[in-house]
Amino acid sequence: MSVILTIDKTAQWLSERDNFLILTHKRPDGDTLGSAGALAQGLREQGKTAYALYNPEVTPRYLHCIEPYIVPDDFVPEHIITVDTATTDLFPNNATQYIDQISLCIDHHPSNTFYAEHTCLNAERASCGEVVFDILTKMTSSPVSAETAKRLYVALSTDTGCFSFSNTTANTLHVASLLVEAGAPNKELNKVLFRTKTRSRLMIEGMIISELEFSYDDKVAITSITMDMLNKTGANEDDLDDIAALPCSIEGVSVGITIRELSSTNKCKLSVRTNAPYSAREICEHFGGGGHDLAAGCLIDKPVGEIKKLLHNVLEDIMAP
Amino acid sequence: MSVILTIDKTAQWLSERDNFLILTHKRPDGDTLGSAGALAQGLREQGKTAYALYNPEVTPRYLHCIEPYIVPDDFVPEHIITVDTATTDLFPNNATQYIDQISLCIDHHPSNTFYAEHTCLNAERASCGEVVFDILTKMTSSPVSAETAKRLYVALSTDTGCFSFSNTTANTLHVASLLVEAGAPNKELNKVLFRTKTRSRLMIEGMIISELEFSYDDKVAITSITMDMLNKTGANEDDLDDIAALPCSIEGVSVGITIRELSSTNKCKLSVRTNAPYSAREICEHFGGGGHDLAAGCLIDKPVGEIKKLLHNVLEDIMAP
Repeated sequence: MSVILTIDKTAQWLSERDNFLILTHKRPDGDTLGSAGALAQGLREQGKTAYALYNPEVTPRYLHCIEPYIVPDDFVPEHIITVDTATTDLFPNNATQYIDQISLCIDHHPSNTFYAEHTCLNAERASCGEVVFDILTKMTSSPVSAETAKRLYVALSTDTGCFSFSNTTANTLHVASLLVEAGAPNKELNKVLFRTKTRSRLMIEGMIISELEFSYDDKVAITSITMDMLNKTGANEDDLDDIAALPCSIEGVSVGITIRELSSTNKCKLSVRTNAPYSAREICEHFGGGGHDLAAGCLIDKPVGEIKKLLHNVLEDIMAP
Repeated sequence: MSVILTIDKTAQWLSERDNFLILTHKRPDGDTLGSAGALAQGLREQGKTAYALYNPEVTPRYLHCIEPYIVPDDFVPEHIITVDTATTDLFPNNATQYIDQISLCIDHHPSNTFYAEHTCLNAERASCGEVVFDILTKMTSSPVSAETAKRLYVALSTDTGCFSFSNTTANTLHVASLLVEAGAPNKELNKVLFRTKTRSRLMIEGMIISELEFSYDDKVAITSITMDMLNKTGANEDDLDDIAALPCSIEGVSVGITIRELSSTNKCKLSVRTNAPYSAREICEHFGGGGHDLAAGCLIDKPVGEIKKLLHNVLEDIMAP
């Protein structure tokens, strides 16, 4: 059984200990890497020894968050901490050795499985970075440093799409304002994180747009990503991040479907996004998939053209006035 | 000579008066309309009579900001106020009758010409909405209402690209957090304002992407918007807003140029965006245009193909290593 710690108790727990190793999650994003870097920096500023485990999947965009804190081979940690990691399934390969030794988990996911000895969870927060901010400011009762603020800003802003996603709260914006005041270079970070796209991303967006097919009074928009498009653009998984949101971001569209070819052209992944009252899950359940009301997915062992026909049979019922 | 009023003095000035008419600027954006609506709402909550003049160019997206406050024909204003309007050149046609009668101008543009009897200007603020927020909270010493907060959120968020533009300050984020706390429906507003694109906008983006030409080790990206593309997509001025930022938002690109055909195919507008050390102004000055270091423009009486050739002559020097 994991012991649940409040922010106060977590701050006290950290204050009384030393020699920390911080782990991030698989396919690491700005929240896990920013939280890890900020926690390491904040703990060091309080005289502690703190390192982050290298994440083998870290991308150049986020490497700066943890680079100064990467653990050397000869460090023997006393306490291992995870940030933004809901379950042990999300441990990167080089972290699985620590699965049974996690002293503290700091998280904001309601799906957390309480795998750590101690858990500090605030599921009201949009980002784990907000939880780390609360802990660090509780430990020192003073504003965070510019180095810590920079990394926490990465955490908050990336997990909320620069404060545009529906998870953004008054607290997110309030903490962000304190981080900018503390010296987080929001102009420079925003430019890289939100106002720059890779050429591959832009090219694949252009192709997806030109492939869009509208139906049912333009309420449904269907597009596809073929292996050929991926090869032509050189788009990788990072480039495809959240791209399935595109069809449903068009004014008037209530059902947006992205059909993506997987390795073979006879197997596709469907990503469905909807606006109420239409249910993405209902559409995907027809094909053995599932998910949330407004975002769901499924795998279908058929080529794109056949899937489109199958989809129209399903949509016929759902879109009937 | 305009009398400069502090926030305190402006709050006092408003408290001592009544029967206000509020004007917005030409090609009205979220900041002018949100500021006007919030000011009218806030003044009404303090027992004042306040209306906004209808803006003939208001788009459906922002109409809700001022709709409840549109002035009836028989109202005789005692004091006329402008918001977010730097010069009288920016008055809409139906407002020019008031040019010499502006009692108070509330603004955040450093280019303000002090045309009003009294001016409350804070050029440190990213949006006029932040200035209106300061005035309203000074008048009542209590949080703004949800109706006021909603309109101020439109003002702040649209003028800062949902807090991603380089003008975003700690104050912007701090006020935004107070607005969300006061009941501004940021989830719903963000979806409409930042996470939805018109079909015409998306189509024109797709075409611009497919027209991109890269040169000088992919540091330069040039694209064009032809009359044919505008006709095919039905894109209007709203749809083209800030579209010239696209080529320079590509990773690795330092000079992004958008050539847009104007009515006749022999006259084009060039919009140039650069990253330091390249100067957009320098490029445009070659063609008799001008602007800022990183964003500039010019008009050229030639067709797209010829302009591309001319550009390469200019770029040859600028991009030389």
